Amino acid sequence: MSKNRPNVTSRDVAKRAGVSQASVSRAFTPGGIISDAKKARILAAADELKYVPNSIASSLITARTNTVALIIGDTGNPFYVHVLRAFISALQKRGQQVLTFTIDTGSTTDDAIRRVLQYRVDAVILTAAQVSTSMLALCQEQAIPIILFNRYIPGESVPVVRCDNAAGGRIMADVLRGAGARSFALLKGDPRGTTSADRAQGFLDRLYENDIKEAAVDQIECGSTYDGARQAVERVYVNQGRALPDAVFGVNDVMAMAAIDVLRFGLGKLIPDDIMVAGFDSIPESARAPYQLTTLLQPIDTMVADTLALLDESLAASDVAAFSAEKIIPSQLIWRKTVPGAEPRLTDTLP
Amino acid sequence: MSKNRPNVTSRDVAKRAGVSQASVSRAFTPGGIISDAKKARILAAADELKYVPNSIASSLITARTNTVALIIGDTGNPFYVHVLRAFISALQKRGQQVLTFTIDTGSTTDDAIRRVLQYRVDAVILTAAQVSTSMLALCQEQAIPIILFNRYIPGESVPVVRCDNAAGGRIMADVLRGAGARSFALLKGDPRGTTSADRAQGFLDRLYENDIKEAAVDQIECGSTYDGARQAVERVYVNQGRALPDAVFGVNDVMAMAAIDVLRFGLGKLIPDDIMVAGFDSIPESARAPYQLTTLLQPIDTMVADTLALLDESLAASDVAAFSAEKIIPSQLIWRKTVPGAEPRLTDTLP
Repeated sequence: MSKNRPNVTSRDVAKRAGVSQASVSRAFTPGGIISDAKKARILAAADELKYVPNSIASSLITARTNTVALIIGDTGNPFYVHVLRAFISALQKRGQQVLTFTIDTGSTTDDAIRRVLQYRVDAVILTAAQVSTSMLALCQEQAIPIILFNRYIPGESVPVVRCDNAAGGRIMADVLRGAGARSFALLKGDPRGTTSADRAQGFLDRLYENDIKEAAVDQIECGSTYDGARQAVERVYVNQGRALPDAVFGVNDVMAMAAIDVLRFGLGKLIPDDIMVAGFDSIPESARAPYQLTTLLQPIDTMVADTLALLDESLAASDVAAFSAEKIIPSQLIWRKTVPGAEPRLTDTLP
Repeated sequence: MSKNRPNVTSRDVAKRAGVSQASVSRAFTPGGIISDAKKARILAAADELKYVPNSIASSLITARTNTVALIIGDTGNPFYVHVLRAFISALQKRGQQVLTFTIDTGSTTDDAIRRVLQYRVDAVILTAAQVSTSMLALCQEQAIPIILFNRYIPGESVPVVRCDNAAGGRIMADVLRGAGARSFALLKGDPRGTTSADRAQGFLDRLYENDIKEAAVDQIECGSTYDGARQAVERVYVNQGRALPDAVFGVNDVMAMAAIDVLRFGLGKLIPDDIMVAGFDSIPESARAPYQLTTLLQPIDTMVADTLALLDESLAASDVAAFSAEKIIPSQLIWRKTVPGAEPRLTDTLP
């Protein structure tokens, strides 16, 4: 392959556009202070001359690549697709490139992180995936911050932004009990994910603190996906014919949506008249006519903005490995039509 | 920020693992010929010593960055989310990094491409987005191949992989006419996208070739999204009270799914008894119980594999700017429950 890049410099562009070389540099620097008109004139001149500045060469000088690695695990849950999109869009607006890695179900992120480190990124954002402590140590040695999004590692002081998942589980326990439910199905997600585990634990803790006994809760492993939940709910309540509970809580929306589909189309049940259903995430799909799901909203935009703020703090820290912070964002009840009655005033019921 | 990278070389890793330096290099080269056991031993030694090879420095030597830019437009259509995931996964397996760019609705890719070029990627894959001819020229000057996925630019000889969208539209015209429909709603997508436009045109051409007149087809602009289609269908058939047609064809699945929701929940119609509906893409969501959509499958895995093959051919071409190729992949009828009757033998009906 011939890579005959034209030998055009910023000096040529400056001359053509009638500006200084410093202005050309500012025009190509994301967030550079320059008027729109001047920037447009410089970019037009650059396009005419086929001029492209070389970011990699300059990265060797600044020791920053202006690139953030985004490692994303469970894209079977649409919530994380919305997260992926929000991160790419927000990082782009800040002038940063995004190297994206996906992790297959059941794999760890070790291979991805090893490759991320080879590539010299400024920072790593990791979501919906597991990371080993040895890889964390490797990143810290390289002074590359890792921020965990909706994940944390017990015992490790890695910066974390997450929803208050346990509190959300407690809220849904109160909402469903308040609507009259006394028996429950709890659709659990990936057991290795702290998000799923915390939501389930908060839900159970709050039920048991009240008058609900363990035997009144069917705990069903569903693996976080629509298909996993559909198959599990069919197996337990259709094939095995177990008596239906009063309420189903899916620790994410896609699992709650799968339960609705099985209950309605497989068992002919009316929701919420025959059985109530609740979810967690408030993905756009959960608001559509076939679902109208009562759920808890995770505020993606706030969580993404907080993650990027933490990323900047990490990069500015004198000792990256020692930097630690945790931002915990409350979820928000979205009252739709799968739980009967009126929206409760949660301040009355929650501790 | 202190970036005190430990001064460990591949020689140290080789010594610790008891192998040659060449083996260390192979262990860190994606696809390098080395036994799993030896590779594991070398990676373990590298982890212990906190060794990380520097890909950027080596990219300056090889003139390849091993990085592919993926520019993706319309992520409001879940099909392209599945495409994004398939590309990231396939490129990762080949040992390539993926720089991901999203384009906001209504924007062009020019800014993204300008930044891609700054970053020295090996190639650009562009999908569900528009690109200007001046940016194409800039990429070609830099000898960086662009492959268009499910897009083409009339008059430009850029390599393209796409579904045979016009033929798919013709198939759906025959399917719906064959099931007895004589009046139609055509839910059109983003008018700037060749995919949507070709599907709509193929559908109309085939209807008009037969006994259907223009007045029998309501052409409705929906902008390619679920919400766009829901609002448009509500406006025309609920608010304006226009008489319903016999059949609705959404040029993508999410628009067909939106039509089903409005017809069923807004107008109390039975599908397919009162009105038939068909889509295009066969996204996983279209198979779920509330939809059971009859649609056309775009074979993502085949299309992604063909795109990567074309990318390799482009990179190997002696003149990147002159390289041109087009792979057109047929769609495949997926017969579910939103069109009445038995699955037609398409060979009988299509020209």
